[in-house]
Order: sequence, then structure tokens, then C-alpha cells
Amino acid sequence: MEHAADPSHPRYRSLLMRHRLEIAAKKGMLADSAMIAHGRGEAYDYLLGETTIPSADLATRFALRALMKAEHPVLSVNGNVVALAGDEMLKLADWIGCPIEVNIFYRTPERMEALLTDLNERKKRLGLHVDILGASPDATIPGLKGPRAKCESKGILRADTILVPLEDGDRCEALVAMGKTVIVIDLNPLSRSSRRGSITIVDELSRCLENMLAMETETLPSLDSYEHDKTLQDALNAIVDGMKNKFSETKE
Amino acid sequence: MEHAADPSHPRYRSLLMRHRLEIAAKKGMLADSAMIAHGRGEAYDYLLGETTIPSADLATRFALRALMKAEHPVLSVNGNVVALAGDEMLKLADWIGCPIEVNIFYRTPERMEALLTDLNERKKRLGLHVDILGASPDATIPGLKGPRAKCESKGILRADTILVPLEDGDRCEALVAMGKTVIVIDLNPLSRSSRRGSITIVDELSRCLENMLAMETETLPSLDSYEHDKTLQDALNAIVDGMKNKFSETKE
Repeated sequence: MEHAADPSHPRYRSLLMRHRLEIAAKKGMLADSAMIAHGRGEAYDYLLGETTIPSADLATRFALRALMKAEHPVLSVNGNVVALAGDEMLKLADWIGCPIEVNIFYRTPERMEALLTDLNERKKRLGLHVDILGASPDATIPGLKGPRAKCESKGILRADTILVPLEDGDRCEALVAMGKTVIVIDLNPLSRSSRRGSITIVDELSRCLENMLAMETETLPSLDSYEHDKTLQDALNAIVDGMKNKFSETKE
Repeated sequence: MEHAADPSHPRYRSLLMRHRLEIAAKKGMLADSAMIAHGRGEAYDYLLGETTIPSADLATRFALRALMKAEHPVLSVNGNVVALAGDEMLKLADWIGCPIEVNIFYRTPERMEALLTDLNERKKRLGLHVDILGASPDATIPGLKGPRAKCESKGILRADTILVPLEDGDRCEALVAMGKTVIVIDLNPLSRSSRRGSITIVDELSRCLENMLAMETETLPSLDSYEHDKTLQDALNAIVDGMKNKFSETKE
């Protein structure tokens, strides 16, 4: 796969993300469907203009506010999340002072081990103090079947607010049904996770997290003013406008 | 990866295509970026409603007409094309009476060998008589550099009409620049291949080929009436309409 080492390359970021997935695949961190899921995200990001739209920036501020004011916030990560933005997730957990829980849809001991090892190596390298959960599940998410329901009682089970980037629709709905504030990061504003989440950020994961980590907490908006439908509609409008502009380019 | 053996399953076809890619990946037929490219296609197909829209059906008729009346038609195939619709491409080549040429972007001897072997096995199983080219490139496509320019003089080089499903934009443009009638099958109506192609079918590959193989050749439209911009605009409109409908579903 092509690597663009030059950050000024127009496709630098996109190629960097692919490179991160390639490395993670070699380490056994990813599900079989990981690359296909990433490709779907790439298509939406292309339509969004590979940029953070204003409504996504605002949703990111609401999300950070919700995490900051939660009693038991937790960041849930899967294979693609660790691959694409493991460092940023750890930095966010350290900043908020909350645990990260590895929680994957296609759960196997090998994948769990690969993900926990990778996160612990990142944590050591970054010199952060973050509890990394997931190795010892002692609870289940009601409404889900089999290994995908497993979680930790001191992590996802007791969380009042949970960040679930790139989450499967069933699990997102199950977490919402538990009464939690569920924060979704997803490039498809039409996905079940995007629609069912409490707060949805339609943005590329690493871009969103970099934005979040640079935000000043004093100026975050009150959660009362978050408008879920408007957030999703704005993202759809941006995609549709992007299409109009892209097609007019072809007429030149 | 999940397999839906039951054709009545709403995601049967999508899972079948993933399954075909999985098998091809194990045989070494695919580029590293194959799964990501497929995921991008899935996103567009989802927005199209996973159906053949009327303008795509019409474009398929124009494409078949162009192939039927060509002096030297050629079907160009890459890894994803062989994986997703190798049988259908062979049946089409047999019907039209033209060669298939394996022509891949990331050309390595191992991938070429894997693809040629797979196609020859399919041909034998189907009992078809089709020339499968690509093993002995003796020409180059002007304007391309390195291994990706390689082609055969009795295949792509001399072709007047060429079917290039899922083709890279650079190569599509290079073939158009050679004066050929280039028929593109691509789910993204905004891609460079879609825009630059002579005739573009915005449809899922295997669905399009099944449609094409079932068409009656007596009723095909005259090529004069093909409208390229309208074809692409119709596909964009279908995507935008699909978004409107999908979002209104969320309000229920």
C-alpha cells in the first residue's frame, strides 16, 4: 500500500489511516470486516469533503461536556478505534480521568490479547495513567447475545456516559436502552448508531479526537441546547451539498 | 465473517460478495486496498438502495450495444472483478466472443498468476471458450508509468471498445485518451472513472452483469441517444433521494 510520508500530500491523512490499519491487521487486532467498514467510512468522509463540518465541531463540544460532567464516564474501543486513534483515545481518557474498555463485536481471546497489548504499549510510551479494562469481563450488556455482550462491571456496566466510536448498531441501541448517555462518532449520519445515539458526531475519528483534545473546557455549551436531529440533518446537507459541488467540477 | 446461506436474507447478496472477496484474498488475488475499495462501493450501493436504478439499466443496454457492435471488444478485469463476478465476466466474454485481459494496478507476478489460475479454473468449470490474456504483456498503455501500464497488443492495445469495471481513474483516462470507447461500471457517480468514461453504469458489478446477460440484443438502444451527464446526474439524484427517505424513516 502506498505511503505518503509528506503531510502536505492531499491524501496524507487518508493514507496514514490506511497505514495504521495495515499495521493493526498484521498484529491480529482487526476483525475480518474491518477494512470494508473503513472503506464505507472513507466514502462518507469523501462526500463530507474530508473536513470537520461546523455541526460536528459543535457536537464534539457537547460530547466533551457530557464526558466531563459524568460521574462514571467510560471510553469503549474496538479494533478499528485502537488502530486508527489508540493514542488519542488514551490521551482523552487520561484527560477526563476515566477508564478505557476494550469491547469488540467479534470477540476472540487472540484479538482481545492483541488489543490489550497494543493499548498497554501505547500507554507506556505516552507515559499516561489510564485503567485499561476488558480483560476480565464479569457482566453482560442486557439484550445482546453471546461474547459480544461481555463487559466489566467497573467499566461499561456502571458507566453513566459512554463514548462508542465506530460502534455496531445493535450494541449502541442496547447501551441506550440501559439508560446511558451514548456518544457516537460515525461518518454515516444515517447509520443506526448515528440515529440512536444520545449525541452523535459525524466526523472522522482521529480528526474528531484531535479537535476534542484541543478544546478549552471553560467554553463548552450546555447540554440542553444539543439538537440531535439537526446535527444529523446538517451532516446530510453537507454531504448533499458536497455532491452538488463535486458534480459541477466535472463540467469545467 | 458472517455467511448468509439463505437467499431470502435481506443482506444475502452483500454477505455473498464479502464471502467471495474473502476467498479471493486467501488465494492471493487481491491488492491490499481491495477490501477498503469494496467498502466504499458498499456505502454507495447502500445509498442507491442496493438496486439497479432505471438510468443504470439503460446505461447497461448502451454498454451491451457498444460491446456487440465493436470490432475488437475486450473485457478488462482486476482482482476485485474476478473475485466478485469472475463467472459473469467469462459468460459475457463468451457471449460477445471477445477476450478477457487481466490488467491490475498493483501488478506482481504472484497476483497475476493467482488471477489467471482462478479464471482458467472458472472457464473449465463453466465449459466456455474464452481467450484469457494478460500473462504475456508486449505493449504499454501510453501515459501510464511502470507495471500498471503493461498490456497485450492483441487485447487492450488494439481494442476499440473496452469494459473496465471498478477501474482506477488514471487508467480509465489513459484508455479514453487512446480513443477507445471505455465502458465503466462503478458505484460512485462522482469518481474520476465514472466521469471520464464513455459510458458509465452506476451499479453493483455482479447485479449489472446478471442484468446484462439476461438482455435481449434485438431491443438495445442506439448509441446516439446515450446521455453521459444525465446518467451520472440520475445516479446522484437517486442517492440524494435515498438519503431523504432514509432520514425520514428515523422520525417514525
